[in-house]
Amino acid sequence: MNFVEKLRRIQRKNNSLLCIGLDTDPAAVPESLYRWGDPQYEFNRRIIDATKDLVCAYKLNIAFYESVGEHGWYTVHQTLARIPEEIVTIGDGKRGDISNSAQRQAHLLCEDWEFSATTVNPYMGSDSVMPFLRRADQCAFILTITSNRGSKDFQRLTIKGRPLFEHVVVAAQRWNAKKNVGLVVGATAPAELKRVRSMAPTMPILIPGIGKQRGNLQSAVWNGCDSQGELAIINVGRGIIYASRDDDFAERAREAAIDFRARINRYRERFFTR
Amino acid sequence: MNFVEKLRRIQRKNNSLLCIGLDTDPAAVPESLYRWGDPQYEFNRRIIDATKDLVCAYKLNIAFYESVGEHGWYTVHQTLARIPEEIVTIGDGKRGDISNSAQRQAHLLCEDWEFSATTVNPYMGSDSVMPFLRRADQCAFILTITSNRGSKDFQRLTIKGRPLFEHVVVAAQRWNAKKNVGLVVGATAPAELKRVRSMAPTMPILIPGIGKQRGNLQSAVWNGCDSQGELAIINVGRGIIYASRDDDFAERAREAAIDFRARINRYRERFFTR
Repeated sequence: MNFVEKLRRIQRKNNSLLCIGLDTDPAAVPESLYRWGDPQYEFNRRIIDATKDLVCAYKLNIAFYESVGEHGWYTVHQTLARIPEEIVTIGDGKRGDISNSAQRQAHLLCEDWEFSATTVNPYMGSDSVMPFLRRADQCAFILTITSNRGSKDFQRLTIKGRPLFEHVVVAAQRWNAKKNVGLVVGATAPAELKRVRSMAPTMPILIPGIGKQRGNLQSAVWNGCDSQGELAIINVGRGIIYASRDDDFAERAREAAIDFRARINRYRERFFTR
Repeated sequence: MNFVEKLRRIQRKNNSLLCIGLDTDPAAVPESLYRWGDPQYEFNRRIIDATKDLVCAYKLNIAFYESVGEHGWYTVHQTLARIPEEIVTIGDGKRGDISNSAQRQAHLLCEDWEFSATTVNPYMGSDSVMPFLRRADQCAFILTITSNRGSKDFQRLTIKGRPLFEHVVVAAQRWNAKKNVGLVVGATAPAELKRVRSMAPTMPILIPGIGKQRGNLQSAVWNGCDSQGELAIINVGRGIIYASRDDDFAERAREAAIDFRARINRYRERFFTR
């Protein structure tokens, strides 16, 4: 199944644009989980089991797994195995390299772990991105406007009358022969999100920056969705997984996810006729 | 010891600007190494033992280790343990992320593996780079002009009369309070290398693209060195480690490394009075 179709199906089935960021810091999980051999996985398992009917996607920032040591590689595998097949999984590694190295990066994310999507840094250009676009059922989300403060350093510089990030959108469309390219636009940049959506009306847009990073949720929905009120993937990480630091973390995460989904759907209902 | 001082010392001691790229594909090592538990490490060990008096640095592209499975994490550790302390080690991951994730990335490369240098993608801006610049004895090489074809897609676009990569050099200088920022400029871009060196006369420059990628070695030396004929790090990967695909690979790698070092030094002698 084509990636966009898979995304629409799960967004409709779970009535949700919400993506939970499983950026699980092993030092931040409740102590009681240390009874298990892999507390990081045990944390993820409980979050997934408590929220899988509320989301369209889970996003794993690879940095949180590679940095724990060799076992992290296996924790990613285990976590992905726990996520129902119909839900989108995003391997957030922000990779990109010259082609033979990018092939290696893509092999890990797309073939070995088999995420349904990845995030890719565009700075090195087309051949650094292509290895992530081999399969039509796997999407590469190209970093366009990121949610951090440093996004102003280069992404908004003006080239021939338009900012660099718009050149990235134009290139992404060129790379989209298999309809499996997406874009990353931070919720902290509402005007830019609106502009990107108008340039790319049918691409999935991954929107980080809600919650701790104080992105604008209303804009994420109104400016991020396609004309059907879909194809925006709104990521919330710490605002959900760390809703409680105690043993009730999974229940609290479920409540927070219900709340985020409801707020997102209220904005959708006000703006999109469905 | 400050990174630049460490680099100068080993470049003088081994009379070498040569860096060997240990981008070791386990599928490409001689079959006889499969007698050992970790053929990828065994290959690296023999290359290091055969060449450590000929180089200033070894560069490991992380993609070649993370993609082999959980053991890759350990292979990096083992390989680094085999490299003499005085030689620069470069963790080539081309990382960069929002700050709390970049901290995780940097933790792995700078604290856990403890490379003496890393490569970082600048697209996300200052706060995505800063976590790699904590220690004055560790350098972050910022991707400036890469050696691949896609480098033309964005890196050379003109902003306010100068190409994007020059804006990256200007930003890198701003980030250089601890004198531990370097730049990556492909040997495939001689004019741009010359320009970058003139803008950043005292920064280390990592120069990939020699060998299989057909970069220009004379330019790498003449345009890449500082005024003392130093601080260019000229990386050769496949042209050395795969000089032979048979059991004599380490001897052949040594011969290739001797040859590259001699060619580099001939260019240095013609151009720099030392």
